[in-house]
Amino acid sequence: MLHFDSDYMEGAHPEVMRRLMETNLEQTPGYGTDRYTLESRQLICRSCGVPDAKVYFLVGGTQTNATVIDGLLARHEGVLCAETAHINVHEAGAIEASGHKVLTLPQHEGKVDAGEVEHYLTDFYRDETYEHMVAPGMLYISHPTEFGTLYTLSELENLSNVCRKHHIPLYMDGARLGYGLAAEGTDVTLTDIGRLCDVFYIGGTKVGALFGEAVVVTRPLLLPHFFSLVKQHGALLAKGRLLGIQFGTLFTDHLYLRIARHAVNMALKLKKAFIEKGYDVYIDSPTNQQFFRMPNEQIDRLMKYATFECWGPRGESFSIVRFVTNWATREKDVEELISYLS
Amino acid sequence: MLHFDSDYMEGAHPEVMRRLMETNLEQTPGYGTDRYTLESRQLICRSCGVPDAKVYFLVGGTQTNATVIDGLLARHEGVLCAETAHINVHEAGAIEASGHKVLTLPQHEGKVDAGEVEHYLTDFYRDETYEHMVAPGMLYISHPTEFGTLYTLSELENLSNVCRKHHIPLYMDGARLGYGLAAEGTDVTLTDIGRLCDVFYIGGTKVGALFGEAVVVTRPLLLPHFFSLVKQHGALLAKGRLLGIQFGTLFTDHLYLRIARHAVNMALKLKKAFIEKGYDVYIDSPTNQQFFRMPNEQIDRLMKYATFECWGPRGESFSIVRFVTNWATREKDVEELISYLS
Amino acid sequence: MLHFDSDYMEGAHPEVMRRLMETNLEQTPGYGTDRYTLESRQLICRSCGVPDAKVYFLVGGTQTNATVIDGLLARHEGVLCAETAHINVHEAGAIEASGHKVLTLPQHEGKVDAGEVEHYLTDFYRDETYEHMVAPGMLYISHPTEFGTLYTLSELENLSNVCRKHHIPLYMDGARLGYGLAAEGTDVTLTDIGRLCDVFYIGGTKVGALFGEAVVVTRPLLLPHFFSLVKQHGALLAKGRLLGIQFGTLFTDHLYLRIARHAVNMALKLKKAFIEKGYDVYIDSPTNQQFFRMPNEQIDRLMKYATFECWGPRGESFSIVRFVTNWATREKDVEELISYLS
Amino acid sequence: MLHFDSDYMEGAHPEVMRRLMETNLEQTPGYGTDRYTLESRQLICRSCGVPDAKVYFLVGGTQTNATVIDGLLARHEGVLCAETAHINVHEAGAIEASGHKVLTLPQHEGKVDAGEVEHYLTDFYRDETYEHMVAPGMLYISHPTEFGTLYTLSELENLSNVCRKHHIPLYMDGARLGYGLAAEGTDVTLTDIGRLCDVFYIGGTKVGALFGEAVVVTRPLLLPHFFSLVKQHGALLAKGRLLGIQFGTLFTDHLYLRIARHAVNMALKLKKAFIEKGYDVYIDSPTNQQFFRMPNEQIDRLMKYATFECWGPRGESFSIVRFVTNWATREKDVEELISYLS
Repeated sequence: MLHFDSDYMEGAHPEVMRRLMETNLEQTPGYGTDRYTLESRQLICRSCGVPDAKVYFLVGGTQTNATVIDGLLARHEGVLCAETAHINVHEAGAIEASGHKVLTLPQHEGKVDAGEVEHYLTDFYRDETYEHMVAPGMLYISHPTEFGTLYTLSELENLSNVCRKHHIPLYMDGARLGYGLAAEGTDVTLTDIGRLCDVFYIGGTKVGALFGEAVVVTRPLLLPHFFSLVKQHGALLAKGRLLGIQFGTLFTDHLYLRIARHAVNMALKLKKAFIEKGYDVYIDSPTNQQFFRMPNEQIDRLMKYATFECWGPRGESFSIVRFVTNWATREKDVEELISYLS
Repeated sequence: MLHFDSDYMEGAHPEVMRRLMETNLEQTPGYGTDRYTLESRQLICRSCGVPDAKVYFLVGGTQTNATVIDGLLARHEGVLCAETAHINVHEAGAIEASGHKVLTLPQHEGKVDAGEVEHYLTDFYRDETYEHMVAPGMLYISHPTEFGTLYTLSELENLSNVCRKHHIPLYMDGARLGYGLAAEGTDVTLTDIGRLCDVFYIGGTKVGALFGEAVVVTRPLLLPHFFSLVKQHGALLAKGRLLGIQFGTLFTDHLYLRIARHAVNMALKLKKAFIEKGYDVYIDSPTNQQFFRMPNEQIDRLMKYATFECWGPRGESFSIVRFVTNWATREKDVEELISYLS
Repeated sequence: MLHFDSDYMEGAHPEVMRRLMETNLEQTPGYGTDRYTLESRQLICRSCGVPDAKVYFLVGGTQTNATVIDGLLARHEGVLCAETAHINVHEAGAIEASGHKVLTLPQHEGKVDAGEVEHYLTDFYRDETYEHMVAPGMLYISHPTEFGTLYTLSELENLSNVCRKHHIPLYMDGARLGYGLAAEGTDVTLTDIGRLCDVFYIGGTKVGALFGEAVVVTRPLLLPHFFSLVKQHGALLAKGRLLGIQFGTLFTDHLYLRIARHAVNMALKLKKAFIEKGYDVYIDSPTNQQFFRMPNEQIDRLMKYATFECWGPRGESFSIVRFVTNWATREKDVEELISYLS
Repeated sequence: MLHFDSDYMEGAHPEVMRRLMETNLEQTPGYGTDRYTLESRQLICRSCGVPDAKVYFLVGGTQTNATVIDGLLARHEGVLCAETAHINVHEAGAIEASGHKVLTLPQHEGKVDAGEVEHYLTDFYRDETYEHMVAPGMLYISHPTEFGTLYTLSELENLSNVCRKHHIPLYMDGARLGYGLAAEGTDVTLTDIGRLCDVFYIGGTKVGALFGEAVVVTRPLLLPHFFSLVKQHGALLAKGRLLGIQFGTLFTDHLYLRIARHAVNMALKLKKAFIEKGYDVYIDSPTNQQFFRMPNEQIDRLMKYATFECWGPRGESFSIVRFVTNWATREKDVEELISYLS
């Protein structure tokens, strides 16, 4: 059976595991105060071109989003995002559980539009009753989005400009950031993100680590006392060095980008084959997630050979399906999958 | 200057004030344990045809919604409602502040559609990832809606059936319930509501009281320990009898319905005149709120004589305006307003 | 039957009722934007000697505490208070429900000691693990305390100094403030409180109003967007003027102080009689609450003639009982009660 | 430099690492639905003698406590625990952040007393105002406690009896459970815990795992929808198998107990030497944490050779210090430390 369900089906990149093994019996203080974590923070700041940023390592994506958003918002504020955003749909209400409303904007292939953000912010304060409403206190985007799509540099600059003009922070969820940076044709680099976002995270769980997300705070005054907030959210790893070592490895010799590129290549190979076989691309993704609209009978047939996800509830005769590659995807598995396409 | 801004611009119906004066220096125990409150609860149960219901008196609408919804939902659940619902738009995030997501459905003149509710509930559990999503744990409706519109008995029965079939409670926000019950042509009575809803509240603030909302819990097991929850939400009035006396007065000799009917008559008179003058009715409301689509210059002209609300942000050349009547609206004021229409 | 259970057994002072009646059918805009509320705010600022303060009117004490504390604290902070504080014992977890820990200090007849506050604040940051602990973010005191006792001016100045030195706000719960200000021998005035506290509230519910608490924010930057927070906490009264009119009346011609003095006189008369009859004063209160330690049989006997509260659970043979007077207490009732003492 | 700061200074037991390496490139579905996790659950149920229990794997202790307690409590309830409990002191307000009050009991060497629990529960409902107070909704204990002490079987049975009599669940925080089970002279076994507790967790982070805590729910109806709650708390590990594999390894061939015993032996060796050198034992702990009362000058001298924690703020001339061993502690390090004692 082949597996294209998600980008977290394997453990960690072998180089990451090797470093964890090498350091396993060393003794270091806890909670990210060890030297591996310190070095790793510096590596990341350098890679992002933000020498004065603060970097925090958390374990998973939902907890990272909940903790950062809780830290950035005042109590009367909510977080703007696309209606398809992970925080709005797939985090079991984690944002609301810490007291904040998720304010939704229309999505365009998973992305939000800077014009619509501006419109929302302007209209909000033109409503006489705005003090009875939840104030838009920050903008959440993901890159790549839930649909694997990417912002262009110009789109990202526009979003950043709107946010700065209206004095709300821009936060990027980078759960799959590596796959975005490694995409063919993208003009967005890590230093662009460091320059344009106030806070963002670099996903490790889906891109080579056992687990872990690196939160980069380019404007540290926005998140004072963040350490205590991380603890309060249950997101503080006792053996913090496990995160430092993993990210240190991923950010040495561009390992993070190199392994991400492999995943993207595998995804594009798969996409090309689906298109050649006449399948409908549901959304044109340049990254490691590929979405197709398939007849249910084809889905059933293919499920004999491979596991993959239906996206949303099944349709009457057609459904949306998602195939995901990652740093560990074997080319022969992709080829075998392609061979099963009719 | 005439005033049609809202239905809470005056104090209380004179009969209510008279009773408050009469009882002012009596001594009673606090927190709703006095005899006035007990009598008032019985009156309400009788009026609603639900002898075994529990009745709680709270002070205002937002606090009532937040407390009831917090009590009805488990932590992993959210509340379904129309996207235009008061809890979604105009309660400053009170629902989310107590940890719950507001799950929105399309609105149809402010109402939700039973078919769409059923579709949501069915689809939700057909999504493989539903445990990562906020479960729909109850349905919130308001009657009249934010737009003054009303459910028909058949619509209400359908909603109730869907909820019972899917084992989620149906909660009705009746901030303006009197104006709904008093509307011409409605086939929904208070006993229908008692029969079809699991929890609802009868609005006092906007219908004759100084303040106060009567929460009727027709299935008391749904809200155990509700007294403590009311206290925790800061919604417990020390001098609880003030609520009991007011509702007791309103539910004696049908005062509640009689004064509501007057408001509706005034609203319809106003609506008729607007239509005759050629104004566009924005939404066809049979209750005490009337919405029109008006040219901005007309709005500016009329604002010299009367206060009223723009609904949402102003448009380029046309905007939506709302005129509200209530139990205290003077017919001569309505006539004067009409005289200013061009 | 005589009643000494609490200070909220009657309605409002007749002068307050008279003003509510007089203005009952006037039309004013909602949510405290009316002229009565504006005037009342100015009166209060003047009385407290803080012309630049902001004043907000809320309905009840628990909701006021929860809203103010929620506004003053950052997420990683808790509120310091005496272990017997109302927020720690009798608010059904309202502070925790909005996410904050109540950090307790020893109580001395209901009061906290400035030296112990300082010690707590100093020790906290000397603990290596302090970032894993809830930071003390403000100090809550009540005046009078739960036991009717009062801070001296010197004690209050010391508390204020400690708070300012450590950069945490000082908040005073003045649910019974009138009875404190009117006490014989107190050297604390309203202008002292205005000068020494960052936020405090002047209780109306227990001192002459039907309901209502006036929050005075002497450093308004501490509570930005407080209007929205009040709304979010369900504490915004639609007919805000009801609060403005009541407080306007109470702060005209020193009515607030005058009626409070009566209550204190009645309490002292009662206390004197109890002492003369040989009863043990449990705590020496100069205000409207009097606590005695009484044999259970005496309690049972007295309960045939009067209602009053047992304080905490009943003891084996002795219990603590509380007798409360207020602005409405009739001297003949006090005398009758005294006549029943054996 | 020697290190006795905490029990999480190394990575994982080599056998655990070996299994993680062996399985690293296997593909499994996420979120704990893989076969390793299923097997591991069965192993644990068997070890605890509770075949019908449900087992969930979370990442860290604070998040486990916050999620379980949030799931067990109704909104009006709080959690009873010793005043020194981790949840009360060292979790940065995580319990309160999800809306619940921590209700403290006196501690006796870190433990709570069944009689005092019973007294609290009985007294609570004898207070006339109990509905204004936070109801005690569960009991939290830790075994070993914060001070390394252990409950006897009889003490644990008494606590369990009190809880069952009063219908509140008993929850045991077992962050260091292995070190408790492996202690000399304890009469409490894992099956006793399975029989007496309603929910407990078996700590992995401090006892051989890289990270991870196994929550055992012996009465699954107490925690319905717990999967969604884990997700909402940000505590759901994407690569859930990492937890399953680790716990599977620890519960094979009694590895968990064997490595815990080593830590206890090292701690006792150290304790014996301290006593022989004339140091004051602060609390008589039979497990891997040892507390001494030492002159500050001795502390300073010893800190040249070893790292360890001061417990609470430093005293004037004496302070409390803590030395911790774990599964990885080398006997030669213990001997070297002993050689530095004067």
